[in-house]
Amino acid sequence: MKPYFYLSVFVVITFFTSCNKVENNIFVSNVNELTEALKSVKAGDDIVLKNGTYKDINIKFIGEGTEGNPITLSAETPGEVFIEGESSLEISGNYLKVDGLFFRNGHSPKTNVIAFRTSKKEVANHSTVSNCVILDFNNLQRDQDNLWVQFYGKHNELSNCYLAGKTNGGPTVRVDLKGNQSIRNYHKIINNHFGPRPRKGGARGETIQLGSSFTSMSPSNTTIANNLFEECNGEVEIISSKTNFNIIKNNVFYKSEGSVVTRHGNYVTVDGNYFIGDGVNDQFGGIRIINTGHWVINNLFYKIKGKNFRSPIAIMNGIPKSPLNRYNQVTDVVVAYNTFVDSDSPFQFGVGTNIAQAAVLPKSEIRSARPLRTEVVNNVIYNSVGDKNPIIEHDKADGVTFKSNVIDNNKVEFPQKDGLVAMKLSLTDIGSNLSFPLSGFSDVEPYIGFDFEKITEDLLGNSRSKNNQIGAILASENINLNILDKSKYGTDWYSNEVEKKDPVTHNVTNADELVSKLKAAESGDIINLNDGAYAISKSLIINKSITIQSNNKSEILYSGDENTPALQLQPYGKLVLKNIKLKGTNTQYAFASLKENMSNHFGLEVIDSEISNFNYALKVFKQSFSEEITFTNTAILNCENGLELSEETNDRGDYNTEFLTIDNCTFNNVKQNVIDYYRGGYDESTIGGNLLVTNSTFTNCGASEKNRILINHRGIVNVNINNNVFKNNKVKLVALLWGAKNNSHSNNTVTNSGIIKTEENLKQKLMY
Amino acid sequence: MKPYFYLSVFVVITFFTSCNKVENNIFVSNVNELTEALKSVKAGDDIVLKNGTYKDINIKFIGEGTEGNPITLSAETPGEVFIEGESSLEISGNYLKVDGLFFRNGHSPKTNVIAFRTSKKEVANHSTVSNCVILDFNNLQRDQDNLWVQFYGKHNELSNCYLAGKTNGGPTVRVDLKGNQSIRNYHKIINNHFGPRPRKGGARGETIQLGSSFTSMSPSNTTIANNLFEECNGEVEIISSKTNFNIIKNNVFYKSEGSVVTRHGNYVTVDGNYFIGDGVNDQFGGIRIINTGHWVINNLFYKIKGKNFRSPIAIMNGIPKSPLNRYNQVTDVVVAYNTFVDSDSPFQFGVGTNIAQAAVLPKSEIRSARPLRTEVVNNVIYNSVGDKNPIIEHDKADGVTFKSNVIDNNKVEFPQKDGLVAMKLSLTDIGSNLSFPLSGFSDVEPYIGFDFEKITEDLLGNSRSKNNQIGAILASENINLNILDKSKYGTDWYSNEVEKKDPVTHNVTNADELVSKLKAAESGDIINLNDGAYAISKSLIINKSITIQSNNKSEILYSGDENTPALQLQPYGKLVLKNIKLKGTNTQYAFASLKENMSNHFGLEVIDSEISNFNYALKVFKQSFSEEITFTNTAILNCENGLELSEETNDRGDYNTEFLTIDNCTFNNVKQNVIDYYRGGYDESTIGGNLLVTNSTFTNCGASEKNRILINHRGIVNVNINNNVFKNNKVKLVALLWGAKNNSHSNNTVTNSGIIKTEENLKQKLMY
Repeated sequence: MKPYFYLSVFVVITFFTSCNKVENNIFVSNVNELTEALKSVKAGDDIVLKNGTYKDINIKFIGEGTEGNPITLSAETPGEVFIEGESSLEISGNYLKVDGLFFRNGHSPKTNVIAFRTSKKEVANHSTVSNCVILDFNNLQRDQDNLWVQFYGKHNELSNCYLAGKTNGGPTVRVDLKGNQSIRNYHKIINNHFGPRPRKGGARGETIQLGSSFTSMSPSNTTIANNLFEECNGEVEIISSKTNFNIIKNNVFYKSEGSVVTRHGNYVTVDGNYFIGDGVNDQFGGIRIINTGHWVINNLFYKIKGKNFRSPIAIMNGIPKSPLNRYNQVTDVVVAYNTFVDSDSPFQFGVGTNIAQAAVLPKSEIRSARPLRTEVVNNVIYNSVGDKNPIIEHDKADGVTFKSNVIDNNKVEFPQKDGLVAMKLSLTDIGSNLSFPLSGFSDVEPYIGFDFEKITEDLLGNSRSKNNQIGAILASENINLNILDKSKYGTDWYSNEVEKKDPVTHNVTNADELVSKLKAAESGDIINLNDGAYAISKSLIINKSITIQSNNKSEILYSGDENTPALQLQPYGKLVLKNIKLKGTNTQYAFASLKENMSNHFGLEVIDSEISNFNYALKVFKQSFSEEITFTNTAILNCENGLELSEETNDRGDYNTEFLTIDNCTFNNVKQNVIDYYRGGYDESTIGGNLLVTNSTFTNCGASEKNRILINHRGIVNVNINNNVFKNNKVKLVALLWGAKNNSHSNNTVTNSGIIKTEENLKQKLMY
Repeated sequence: MKPYFYLSVFVVITFFTSCNKVENNIFVSNVNELTEALKSVKAGDDIVLKNGTYKDINIKFIGEGTEGNPITLSAETPGEVFIEGESSLEISGNYLKVDGLFFRNGHSPKTNVIAFRTSKKEVANHSTVSNCVILDFNNLQRDQDNLWVQFYGKHNELSNCYLAGKTNGGPTVRVDLKGNQSIRNYHKIINNHFGPRPRKGGARGETIQLGSSFTSMSPSNTTIANNLFEECNGEVEIISSKTNFNIIKNNVFYKSEGSVVTRHGNYVTVDGNYFIGDGVNDQFGGIRIINTGHWVINNLFYKIKGKNFRSPIAIMNGIPKSPLNRYNQVTDVVVAYNTFVDSDSPFQFGVGTNIAQAAVLPKSEIRSARPLRTEVVNNVIYNSVGDKNPIIEHDKADGVTFKSNVIDNNKVEFPQKDGLVAMKLSLTDIGSNLSFPLSGFSDVEPYIGFDFEKITEDLLGNSRSKNNQIGAILASENINLNILDKSKYGTDWYSNEVEKKDPVTHNVTNADELVSKLKAAESGDIINLNDGAYAISKSLIINKSITIQSNNKSEILYSGDENTPALQLQPYGKLVLKNIKLKGTNTQYAFASLKENMSNHFGLEVIDSEISNFNYALKVFKQSFSEEITFTNTAILNCENGLELSEETNDRGDYNTEFLTIDNCTFNNVKQNVIDYYRGGYDESTIGGNLLVTNSTFTNCGASEKNRILINHRGIVNVNINNNVFKNNKVKLVALLWGAKNNSHSNNTVTNSGIIKTEENLKQKLMY
C-alpha cells in the first residue's frame, strides 16, 4: 500500500502548491468603507457588503485578480444587499467577481447600471457578474436610453442573474465591441432568467444586443446559452445579434413578443433553442435571418403564431449594396434539423420585400435582393390543425435549396413544393406540457450539405453520427425536459412567482374616504363607491393597480384646477374605472399621465362609464406608455378634446400605447382630437400600435378639428374600424387609412361625416 | 550499440509504412490521351504532359489525391510544355498538383485561365499550382474581363509561378468566397513573381483581389507572402483585399504603380513588406487603409513618391453608414514599426474626403467619417532631402493616437506635431542598393498599445522581446537582403530578364522596300527612308516596336481606301515616326488602331514630322490602349479631325491612353476633334489619364466642332495646358477644365479663340 500513500501525499501537496488560494474577507457596511477597501484590493480578496440598503452608490470595482485568486465583491447574504437610488457599478481589471447584489428602487445616473469598464481604456477581462438581480431600475423618462449591463473587454460573464422590468429605451444587456480590447471577447451570458420586459412602444427595447451596426464587421464570439427569456416583449427583437461568430444555444424563449434576429454581422449559430408560444398571441416570434453564413439548427418551435417579420423562420430580402445599418442580403445560410409544432407558416422567404413601395422610398431602402446559396433542409412540421400555407414566398425563394423536409398537416391540403413531403406523424411528450414528433420519418434521408458533418448532435446532445434523422430531436425514450422550471435559471435566492391574493374591496361613502382609502389600498384592491356624488378638487393619484367602481353609476365631480386630471395615472398606476359618471367643469382632464418622470407604465380600462365636460377625456403626455388602454360601453360627451395620444413626434417609431381599444362607446360633442393616436418614422420592423374602434357611435364630433379628420391615427400599423356609426360630424374624413400596413375598415355607417379613405403608401420620415 | 540499431530499423519501417508513397507516371502527348488518363486517375498518379505545344485544350483535372499521395499533372520538362490557343485549366477534388506548364500565345475561352473548381459545387481543396508561367494570355478585347487564376475551395496554393502581361479587364488572380466551401480558405499565394502588368487605362486591373464587396463579410484567411510584384501598373490597387483576416507579408512591391489596399473587409495584417520606388515616379504607392482592425507593421518604404490615394500610408475617410460597395470608416487600425526613406508625406489622414463636393454628389458618396481609435506609432522617417509636410491631414486626425514616431528631415522645418520627434539618424545598407536607418533612436520608448505584445518580431524575424525599438528593422550587423534578386521568386526555369540588343537599321529607297523591310524587321529595329517620296496604297502594319525615320523629311504619300490608316497600330505595335512628312488624300487616317481584337497595347511617338490631309490624324478605337502617345515638334495640318481618343463612353472609368503629350506642335486648319480625349464615370480612385499640351500653336482650328470646344478632355484627371498660342479658332472655349481634379492651365495666349474655363465640379455618371 505504500506507493499509493506516497502518490496521494504528492498529489495533495501539488494541489495545495499550485492552487495557493488566498482568502481574505473584508467586510464593509457603507460607501466610505467600500471605497477604502477597494483602494488596496488585491488578488484573493473578498470584499463583503454587509446586509442592508446602499443608496446613491456608484461603485468602481477595479482590481487585478488572478485565475486562481480572483477578487470578489459579494453580498453578505445574497439578496440582502440592496443597491437603490442613483446607483451604478463599474468594473475593470482582471478576474473580478460580483455576487448576490439586488438593484431596485432606483436608476443609474450613468449610461449603464453595470459596466465592464471604468473608463474608455480600462476594461474588465475574465470577470463575472453572477447571482444578482436588477429589477425595474428604470430611468425616469422613457427616452432616456441606457443599458442595464454593458459588456466591454474579453472573457466576461453574466450568469445566474434575474433582470426584469426595463421600460426605458435601450437594450437590457449589450455587448460593446468598439476598440480592439473588446473584440473576439468570448463573453458568456448564461443561465440567466430574463423576466418580463414590458412592451416599450417603439424601437430600442431589445433584451440583448450584441454589438451595433458600426461594429458589425467585428468578431464577437459571444455565447448566449441556457437562459430563460420570459415575456421579453420590449420590441420585435429579443436578441439582436449585430456582430460575427456569436452562439445562441439552448435558450428558452417563453411567451416573448419578438424574435431572435441576426440583424447585422454574420456566421451566427442559433442551435437548440426553444420558442414557446400559446397558439393565440401572434406577437410571439422565432428567428429572423439577415446577412451571411448563419446556421440555424436543432431548434424547437411550439405554438408560435407570429407572422411575417415574427414568423418562426423569417428569411429576409436584402437591399442591394445595402448601407451599413440596413439589410444585407441573406447568403450561405443553413436552416436544418428544426421541428415545428402548431406554428403558422414556419418558412417565410423574402420577408420584408418592399419593391411595391419603390415610388415612396429611396433606392437605398428597397429590399429586393433575394436569399442566395441558402439551404432549408431536414426540418419537421406537425400541425394538429392543418396550415394552408406552411411556406410563404413573399418573394421567390429561387436561391434556396429546399430538401428533405416533412410535414404532418392533418390532411389539410397545402401548395405542393419539392422538398416538403407529407407524412403521418405522432407526438411525444417531452415534459413541461410540450409534445413534438420524434419519429416516423426515419425513411427520409437527411440532406447532407457542405460542412453538415459539423452538426454532430441533436438538441439534447445525442450524437447524430449513428441513426441520424431529420428534426431537432432524435428518437429517444422517456424524455422529460423541465425547461420551464424557473428554478433552473437566474439566482438561487430570487423568484418572480408571486402568490395570487384575492383583492380587498374598500367601500367608501364620501369624497374624503375615497381619497384616504385609495391612498391606503394595496395594489389589486377595489374601491367601491356607494351611491351618490363625490365632489373632489384635487387629482386622485393612481400609482398601483386599482379598480374604482360603483353599483349604480355613482358620480365623481371634479372641480380641480384647469389642466389637472381627475385621475392622475402615475408609474405602475393601472386603473379600472367601472360604472362611474366622471364629470368636470370643462377645463380639466378626466385622465392624464404625468408630464414627466413616467418611469414605469400605466394602464387604463374604462367600462360602463360616462365621461363628460372635460377639456380632455384622456391626455397622455410624451414618454408615457400604457400597454393597453380600453374604453368599453362608455360615453364621452361634451368634451373639447377626446383621447389624445399624439405627443411622440420625434418620429423614431415611438408611440404611447400598444393597444387602444374602443368598443361599444358613444362619442358626442367632442370637438377635436376625438381620437388622436400617433406613431412617426418609417420603420419596417415596428409592429405597433394597435387601434381598434368597433360598435361605437360618433355624433356631432370634430367641429373644431383643424385637420378635418375625425379619427387620427397616422403611422399606427394596425388599425381596425368596424361596425361603427358616424353621424353629423363636421369633418372631411372619418379616417385616413394606411393601405400598405395592416389598416382596415368595414361595416361602418357614415352619414354627413365625410368618408373613410385609404392611401396605399403614407409618406413617413426615414428613421435611419 | 544494439538498441540504436533496433530503433533505426523501427524508424525506417515506420516511415515507409506511414508514407506508403505510390508512384505512377502516366505519359500523355495529346488531348485525347490526357482526357483518357484523367478518367481513371487515382491517388499517387503523376500524369506527365510530354514536351510540346498543346493547342485549344481545356483541361478538367478532377481527382482525389491524399496528403501523402497527391495526384500530379506535370510537364515532362518544366517550361517545355506550352498551352496555347483557346485553352484553360480547371481543377477539383483534393490534393492535386499542377507543375511546370507555360500558358502563352492564346487566351482562355472561359472566365478564367486556371480555376480551382470544375463546377459551382465541385471545388478543389489542398491543391497547388506551382512552377507555371502565364504570359500575355489575354482576351482579344480589353473589355472582355476575365481572371488568370481564380481560387475556390480551401487550402489551395499558387506558388513559384510567373504571371505577366495581362492587358484586359479583371484582376490577374482572384480568391472567390461565394459559398461556405470557400470561406476560411487559408489559401497561399507565395513565392511568385508577378511580372509587369501594364497600365490598363481604368479600373479592374488589380494584380490580386481577395474576394469582392459582396463577400466582404466573410473570413478568408488568405496569405500572400514572399512574392515579387514588379511593375504591376494595372490600376491604383496592386492587391485589393476585400475580405477578412488576410495576411500580406514579406512581399516586395518594386516600381509598381499602385498600392496595397484594404478595400473591403477587416482585420488584415500587412506585415514586413517592401515598397520600392525610384524617387521620381509619383504613381508608385504604399498602403491605403479603409475599414476596421488592420495591422500595418514592420513595412519598409523606399523612395515612394505617391501622393494622396497612393501615399505611403493613406488612411481614408469613410462614408457614414456606407453602402456595402463603398467606403466604411477606418476604426481600430494599428500602423506601427514602419520605416520610410525618402518617401513623400508618408502619413496622410482623411484621404478621399470630399465634403466640398456635397453639392454634386449624393449623400451616400460623401466621405466625411474620420478615422477612429487608430494608432500610428513607433514609425521612423528619414529624408535625405527634407519634406515640408511629412504628415498631411486632408481631414482632422482627431481619432488617431500619434506617438513615438521619429523623423530625420535633414534640418528642413516641418509643422510640429506631438508624437513626431526630429532626430539625427544615419543609414545602413541592407543590400539591393537599399539603405535604412536602423539605429539612433533607442532612447525613444516604443508606444505599447493593446495587443502590441503580439508584434513579436521585426521585418527580418528578429525577436522584439529584448532591446525592442521603433522602426521596421531592429539594429543588426551585416544585413544583406537580396530582395531584388529575381531568381528568388517565380519558376526555376523562366526569367523575364532580356538581353539588350542593338537595333538594326534598314535603309529603304522605295515603297516596296519599305513594305517588305518593315515586315521583315525585328522588334526594336529602325527603318530609315532615303530622301524622296514613298507612295503607298495599303496600310503599313505596325505590330512590333519599330522606328520609321528619315534624314531630310522624306514623304510618305498615302492613297489607300477611305477610313483606312497609313500606319495601322496593331497589338504590340509601338511606332516611333521621326522626321517624316505623312500626307493623305483627305479621306484616310494617318494613324489608327484596330477596330477590334486589340489584345495588347500599342504605342505611338511622332517627332519632327508633318501630318497633313487626312480625315483623322489619329483614330484610336474603343478598347484600344496605349500607355503613351506623344507628338513632339510636329505639325498637323489640313485635317478634318485631329487626335481622336473618345470612344470609351461606357463611363466605367476607362480611357484610351495613360499619357497624351503634345509638345511644341502646330495645329492648323484641323476642323474638329482637334484633341478629343475622354474618360467617363465618377471614380475617386482612378488616377488617369494625363493630357499635357505645351508650347504649341493652334490656328484656324475647330471650325466644324459641334460642341465648340477646341480641346476636349472631359473626365481626364490630369490636364496641363501651358505656354500655348491659340489664334483665330472659331470656338467658344479653348478647354473646359475640371477644377476638383488635377486640371490646370497657364501662360497661354488666346486670341480670337474663346476662353479657357474651369468648372470646379464636372457632373459625372456614378460608376457604383
